[in-house]
Amino acid sequence: MLQNPLISVRPALRLATVAVAAACAFPAGAANPVTWDAIQNDHQTPTDVLSYGMGLKAQRHSPLTQINTETVGAMVPAWSFSFGGEKQRGQEAQALVHDGVIYVTASYSRFFAIDARSGKRLWEYEYRLPDNIRPCCDVVNRGPAIYGDKVFFGTLDAAIVALNKDSGEVVWKKKFGDHKIGYTMTGAPFIVKDQKSGKVLLVHGSSGDEFGVVGWLFARDPDTGEEVWARPMVEGHMGRLNGKDSTITGDAKAPSWPDDPKSPTGKVEAWSHGGGAPWQTASFDIENNMVVIGAGNPAPWNTWKRTKEGDDPRNWDSLFTSGQAYVDASTGELKGFFQHTPNDAWDFSGNNSVVLFEYKDPKSGKLVKASAHADRNGFFFVTDREKLAKGAGYPNKPTSLIGAWPFVDGITWASGFDLKTGKPVEKDNRPQQPKKGADKGESIFVSPPFLGGTNWMPMSFNPDTGLFYIPANHWAMDYWTEHLTYKAGSAYLGQGFRIKKLFDDHVGTFRAIDPKTGKIVWEHKEEFPLWAGTLTTSGNLVFTGTSDGYVKAFDAKNGKELWKFQTGSGVVSVPITWEMDGEQYVGIQSGYGGAVPLWGGDMAELTRQVTQGGSFWAFKLPKQLAAR
Amino acid sequence: MLQNPLISVRPALRLATVAVAAACAFPAGAANPVTWDAIQNDHQTPTDVLSYGMGLKAQRHSPLTQINTETVGAMVPAWSFSFGGEKQRGQEAQALVHDGVIYVTASYSRFFAIDARSGKRLWEYEYRLPDNIRPCCDVVNRGPAIYGDKVFFGTLDAAIVALNKDSGEVVWKKKFGDHKIGYTMTGAPFIVKDQKSGKVLLVHGSSGDEFGVVGWLFARDPDTGEEVWARPMVEGHMGRLNGKDSTITGDAKAPSWPDDPKSPTGKVEAWSHGGGAPWQTASFDIENNMVVIGAGNPAPWNTWKRTKEGDDPRNWDSLFTSGQAYVDASTGELKGFFQHTPNDAWDFSGNNSVVLFEYKDPKSGKLVKASAHADRNGFFFVTDREKLAKGAGYPNKPTSLIGAWPFVDGITWASGFDLKTGKPVEKDNRPQQPKKGADKGESIFVSPPFLGGTNWMPMSFNPDTGLFYIPANHWAMDYWTEHLTYKAGSAYLGQGFRIKKLFDDHVGTFRAIDPKTGKIVWEHKEEFPLWAGTLTTSGNLVFTGTSDGYVKAFDAKNGKELWKFQTGSGVVSVPITWEMDGEQYVGIQSGYGGAVPLWGGDMAELTRQVTQGGSFWAFKLPKQLAAR
Repeated sequence: MLQNPLISVRPALRLATVAVAAACAFPAGAANPVTWDAIQNDHQTPTDVLSYGMGLKAQRHSPLTQINTETVGAMVPAWSFSFGGEKQRGQEAQALVHDGVIYVTASYSRFFAIDARSGKRLWEYEYRLPDNIRPCCDVVNRGPAIYGDKVFFGTLDAAIVALNKDSGEVVWKKKFGDHKIGYTMTGAPFIVKDQKSGKVLLVHGSSGDEFGVVGWLFARDPDTGEEVWARPMVEGHMGRLNGKDSTITGDAKAPSWPDDPKSPTGKVEAWSHGGGAPWQTASFDIENNMVVIGAGNPAPWNTWKRTKEGDDPRNWDSLFTSGQAYVDASTGELKGFFQHTPNDAWDFSGNNSVVLFEYKDPKSGKLVKASAHADRNGFFFVTDREKLAKGAGYPNKPTSLIGAWPFVDGITWASGFDLKTGKPVEKDNRPQQPKKGADKGESIFVSPPFLGGTNWMPMSFNPDTGLFYIPANHWAMDYWTEHLTYKAGSAYLGQGFRIKKLFDDHVGTFRAIDPKTGKIVWEHKEEFPLWAGTLTTSGNLVFTGTSDGYVKAFDAKNGKELWKFQTGSGVVSVPITWEMDGEQYVGIQSGYGGAVPLWGGDMAELTRQVTQGGSFWAFKLPKQLAAR
Repeated sequence: MLQNPLISVRPALRLATVAVAAACAFPAGAANPVTWDAIQNDHQTPTDVLSYGMGLKAQRHSPLTQINTETVGAMVPAWSFSFGGEKQRGQEAQALVHDGVIYVTASYSRFFAIDARSGKRLWEYEYRLPDNIRPCCDVVNRGPAIYGDKVFFGTLDAAIVALNKDSGEVVWKKKFGDHKIGYTMTGAPFIVKDQKSGKVLLVHGSSGDEFGVVGWLFARDPDTGEEVWARPMVEGHMGRLNGKDSTITGDAKAPSWPDDPKSPTGKVEAWSHGGGAPWQTASFDIENNMVVIGAGNPAPWNTWKRTKEGDDPRNWDSLFTSGQAYVDASTGELKGFFQHTPNDAWDFSGNNSVVLFEYKDPKSGKLVKASAHADRNGFFFVTDREKLAKGAGYPNKPTSLIGAWPFVDGITWASGFDLKTGKPVEKDNRPQQPKKGADKGESIFVSPPFLGGTNWMPMSFNPDTGLFYIPANHWAMDYWTEHLTYKAGSAYLGQGFRIKKLFDDHVGTFRAIDPKTGKIVWEHKEEFPLWAGTLTTSGNLVFTGTSDGYVKAFDAKNGKELWKFQTGSGVVSVPITWEMDGEQYVGIQSGYGGAVPLWGGDMAELTRQVTQGGSFWAFKLPKQLAAR
């Protein structure tokens, strides 16, 4: 081999294989296992970050104050780390931090452990992906989970992998879906503890609604990867518990989906491919022992495929899609549900973060245990999680809806929500079926578009200000129905679209909303779409990233931009903060990609000026200034 | 296209083509043309960087002092820029700066113009490379040249391209060699002005010695790309001037290469493929109108193929390879030469930077106009550039050698140089031919190895300290001859090798050397090989990068490490500094690659823990501190 030491072949292919990074056996000092107690207390122990959401309630709030409105202007990079490997595209992960080690996933199903002090790679795990994966929205991964001596992450071919956290060696790997028909996994898994059995569970969902697969939520033994329970999100499908059939999701007859007597299932074709994937990460209502998770859009997008012929779509809810689900941690039973978009005709999906929080009811003075969710459909929802744990959303149960307010301007599909029924007040904004002989239906104008008033990027809640911080966008789409039949492995939409601008001067609008009133307290506009998550701290700060490469810090009370740093590629990941050696750090990835450059139409064009990247950044105050 | 908006194919291939970055039409404020006067004064005008080497003499010294031994500890990143495009590997370029725009080349023949204030891409040019390029040592590029309204750079398929500096549009493109037989270009072109005609010339060389091609130096009209003159570096080959044959390089009979009466050329096979490529960048002796450039190794590496059968290799110099060449800017005639390694048997090549400088002779007190060069062969040479302009190196001319001192430890091939003859005092370290019937010769131990005591990465000279700063390495190789015949497009070495460590505790040794005495004034050791260039300033600082990702600053007088920053990938590029809006900036690329991870044997293994990258970094003092 050494006798002919020259590169004489196609560089893009040959060279790419020359120096594939290998896992390196650095001595890792991080041998302490992660306990459930540590995870349960994650939100108040700032020396580590042990869960997606930075706590069971997914508030993404840190009590740290060293970096604050006074000092943040001096914040500088401490180090950067390159994911390398001639693999870039979207970096959407939230990192974890434990014992001086940063655990982070990267595009193309890669996992890195990085020394938090030096920025040096401790180990790298690169999953070998098959050729025929079908991620709808870029080769992203949104982060790992950690428990005991293991870290966990999902792969683009619908598997979940457990690695030894100190060596990066594979402990177990479970394939949970057929990637060839569209199953994939991009969300971060989550650790919960069944409060009845005392068993710690690894909870994760599937992705793939755009290919017509039924979405599933799984709970596994973190030691072995064995499934404990599994819950399909389409009404009428059977769940599993301890390897056996358990209960059917909702009503066995699935009355929210039309019948089709000619079909072998007795239901319309869409019911067998109905989506509802819980593709993002859960939060955990520990008091009610409920896994709280968003369910994805129904498949196909085309509303008429899920509506009885000739009937009003509003009579066919396509349960349990496009809503927030409350699943019993012991049994995997779906206990409660609130649907953000009944019979979702616009791919509002809306399974991004459901944040648990409490507030005093202004009238009664009573503490309300609530859930908050900013949906792709443009509305910010506050729901009663006590009611949801007790069956809200099921027949003869009251709605859990406390409030629903628009958090973006120009919503076309509904004027608001009826708090008595929990149902939207729809405007006439469903795309009509193609006329006879036509290839497609008439194009209509819809805002928000399917990319959403917000999207996967998590909002945060600051208990000090009482405000939620939503990375939102103003945009719209031309939207039309198309003919469709299911074909395994092909897109299952029945819709065409083109994303366009809503306003000339901005797309992104970072907004602070009061969950008691729905009032927008402040907003900050961005020229490019916002596609990064948020973080808020007791330093009265909110952090996020921008598609044109900045990491930014804002005053949490008034939205004033206090600091920014240009990282060189678009930032579409989720910031974290932690304390180490007496210093507060902020960590985030840079690397542009995700759904916008793929499907964003005019916005994809707008962001073509952003180069790809793949790096983790750690920021802190200069020692000179911190010491003053 | 939008109707089927899902990725359902092999991500590594399909996705890579989805979002290939396009040149973007940002309004560039940089419409001022670059004049020859500005280039001539580059070394003393710190608001721009207009030439590789930061001045005609290639000293890489800046008079800036805001960042100095007192303040550098507070230096922080101002911004970073990602080259993107799922193309990483080695970033070896030195950037240029003009009118607030950074011009920099990247791996895979890419060119970027970046706003120096914000770090935003102004435009990008990605050259379309053919499949069958043959760069020996990674897909690197070492930087651009700038003149008038154009920027210039070489491509891996042996072309040189001129782009409009404000738009990135191609103005002209000239292919100068057949990439299929091994011609390529990785070095930065250089602007000189013929002091006789007043014509400004774009000077650049070819690469490809490892494939058995004759090395050429070219001078072109920067407006049109038309060749003005061309000089082959192998003795006895014919040059060109204004499109016609000009003069033969050296003696027409090429007495430094053996005859072979059976060959159609009358010379041995090697003579037709003799290497000597001037693959790095020139400096310009304006007083003598001389383009000063290093000539590469002879081809093949095997010393016996360039030695008359049965004779002593020391009688066959393989002119004009492995030495420093002085070429008349008017005519392209080779006027003077000093050979660092006669009949180079070890691929010492040694065409890295020849730095022009002056010093007072300690004895006579007279100003000496000298050239300095740290060679791969381990010796630091000081030559008399006045003599070299007047024919030194030719028969009956005195040698130009003033001094030759080892700058690394453990040199095996020579004990020193004879100052009277300018010739090395060789030790018995040439690898012997295979014994009859054997595939290869006996392996011998050689240090430095072919990767060199230093390599392409340029040293710097600080007139304040009077010291040169050499990024050097301590390493060795096992080395043996192999049988060989020329085959077009195949490696033409006749040698096998394995690179290994020389010392346990370090490979890199950053050394300051006094050119009057050859004394090593200080050294700084690095665990990994040093592969980045250097920069020195009147702030009494020296900057360089390390293969494990740091940019570092040292006290120029004593070598104390004063500052470092981890950039996340290995740093193997060349730092620059400039002043903008009253602030001093330091710029450098991060992105590991180059020859070491490809051919470095044990050192390739050592650096496998370094991830690839591709980013430009700008550093400066925090405003808060700079103002104090």
